[in-house]
Amino acid sequence: MDNQRLKKQIQFIVEIDKLKQVFRQNVVTGTCRNENDAEHSWHMAVMAVLLSEYSADKNIDMLKVLKMILIHDLVEIDAGDTFCYDEKGCENKAEREKEAAERIFNILPQEQAQEIFELWREFEELKTPEARFAACMDRLQPLLLNYNTNGHTWQKPGVTSEKVYKRNGLLEENAPVLWEFAKEIIEDSILKGYLRR
Amino acid sequence: MDNQRLKKQIQFIVEIDKLKQVFRQNVVTGTCRNENDAEHSWHMAVMAVLLSEYSADKNIDMLKVLKMILIHDLVEIDAGDTFCYDEKGCENKAEREKEAAERIFNILPQEQAQEIFELWREFEELKTPEARFAACMDRLQPLLLNYNTNGHTWQKPGVTSEKVYKRNGLLEENAPVLWEFAKEIIEDSILKGYLRR
Repeated sequence: MDNQRLKKQIQFIVEIDKLKQVFRQNVVTGTCRNENDAEHSWHMAVMAVLLSEYSADKNIDMLKVLKMILIHDLVEIDAGDTFCYDEKGCENKAEREKEAAERIFNILPQEQAQEIFELWREFEELKTPEARFAACMDRLQPLLLNYNTNGHTWQKPGVTSEKVYKRNGLLEENAPVLWEFAKEIIEDSILKGYLRR
Repeated sequence: MDNQRLKKQIQFIVEIDKLKQVFRQNVVTGTCRNENDAEHSWHMAVMAVLLSEYSADKNIDMLKVLKMILIHDLVEIDAGDTFCYDEKGCENKAEREKEAAERIFNILPQEQAQEIFELWREFEELKTPEARFAACMDRLQPLLLNYNTNGHTWQKPGVTSEKVYKRNGLLEENAPVLWEFAKEIIEDSILKGYLRR
């Protein structure tokens, strides 16, 4: 193929097929199979479409939110999934993920690599309403799956309701109605024995 | 929870987790595992973001394209994946999928159910530039995966290059640069023995 631009885009598209092999801590409902990052990203994106009315900021750019969600985990192709309650794993997470971003995004033509890099950095930094709403979906999606799989991930060592509250605290300011709902789920999970107080 | 609207939205979000268990004919690159519809939808959505410049219509609404892609296969939760080269399976596909849409989308609050139903119907009817571009991604994504897995799906009985050309013909008018690329891949697949002429 002579079209060098398209060649780079296709190479990237084939490379990111690997996201379907990056497994997360939680399982898919009704199965014993761990969810992968591609499935998680799709689920978050549908949630964002359906729940945008709950964003505290009513003027968010939904196209940007969706783009961010779709690409937010691509760095895990190289860096792997870091369990959010694994303090040791989180220590060098930023460094590992930045290296991954540089390798993976730079497969694309330069200005697209730049666009994806900026979307990813914006998501990570949580400074814009779009990034914060996208990140709320990143909290709520596994909360829902854990609640519907008898607290699968929460059975792992070191997970307590305090940590789960802290991780989901982002919802309080950025999606208050969803925060009320999240608190109900967490309390019910404690009652049902899915989560240690 | 007193919030009946949110309750319906959450019920839908948990229901569609089942899309991760609807398996397609093709496999994920580098594995022997069939791809599922959630992974496929995510991959198509990223492709749409990166390849929008190749849409014949330059004024497509990308937010609508992404929404369509994200929800286009939800009906398969009930109707199952129909192999595109299975003529018998395709006979009652429309009817099975309409029933599925009615059950699944109506879990949502009424006006959201309506919105998703209309997006799905628009995708199916291929009458708008957004639907046609989304459908181009639905053709190109499995073409790429089959090409990169030694023509996995194309080894099944009844698949010929003529049928693959016909299925991807949608690209010719709606994304001509991608059509040229698709033709190269199909010809190379025939040469390599991945696909019967």
